[in-house]
Amino acid sequence: MSECLFCRIAAGEITEKIVFEDERVVAFEDIDPQAPVHVIIIPRKHIPTVLDLTNADQELVGYMHTVANRVAAEKSLTESGFRLVTNCKESAGQEVLHLHIHLLGGRDFRWPPG
Amino acid sequence: MSECLFCRIAAGEITEKIVFEDERVVAFEDIDPQAPVHVIIIPRKHIPTVLDLTNADQELVGYMHTVANRVAAEKSLTESGFRLVTNCKESAGQEVLHLHIHLLGGRDFRWPPG
Repeated sequence: MSECLFCRIAAGEITEKIVFEDERVVAFEDIDPQAPVHVIIIPRKHIPTVLDLTNADQELVGYMHTVANRVAAEKSLTESGFRLVTNCKESAGQEVLHLHIHLLGGRDFRWPPG
Repeated sequence: MSECLFCRIAAGEITEKIVFEDERVVAFEDIDPQAPVHVIIIPRKHIPTVLDLTNADQELVGYMHTVANRVAAEKSLTESGFRLVTNCKESAGQEVLHLHIHLLGGRDFRWPPG
């Protein structure tokens, strides 16, 4: 059994509210939402941080954005828009060392972004 | 001449402090930095928002993340980490309708991200 929380969610070992999944990517509701819509998008492949991406992962990262767009459409964010955030390491707030994109929407967002 | 500010920067028509450029991607200093390091990463291809990405753009988006990692290394952010932010449309704060990733680093970041 993986010790990585997001690997366990992807494997169905921990029940989260899944909003999308296929053979490469899983998207689920953040348990501590910071906006009316707050979904986390992860690859099934365990990649700790964005710094660990290889050239072979580039299409996968792009595909995660395609999934973000699909989730945004399902959450009716296509007109209003949304913010995507990826934290890399602790100073940025990355709490789980498995690459993930936060998709936040349903309200206006301030600047700076945290 | 393009009317898009970021296309004009990519074309060298507007002088910005370029930190990386090749045939596909350009990265430059944000003129209103929100952190000690604040770089904007754009594709040369004019894509208005993340919602306009096609499947053919997936590798390009991944490559933008590879460039982000390279800029992060040059800015000595590899150990401390950084935050990547992509705003989609006005409610999220997208001011220029040309896809871009904000890379912010050099300080701790708060949550929520704006």
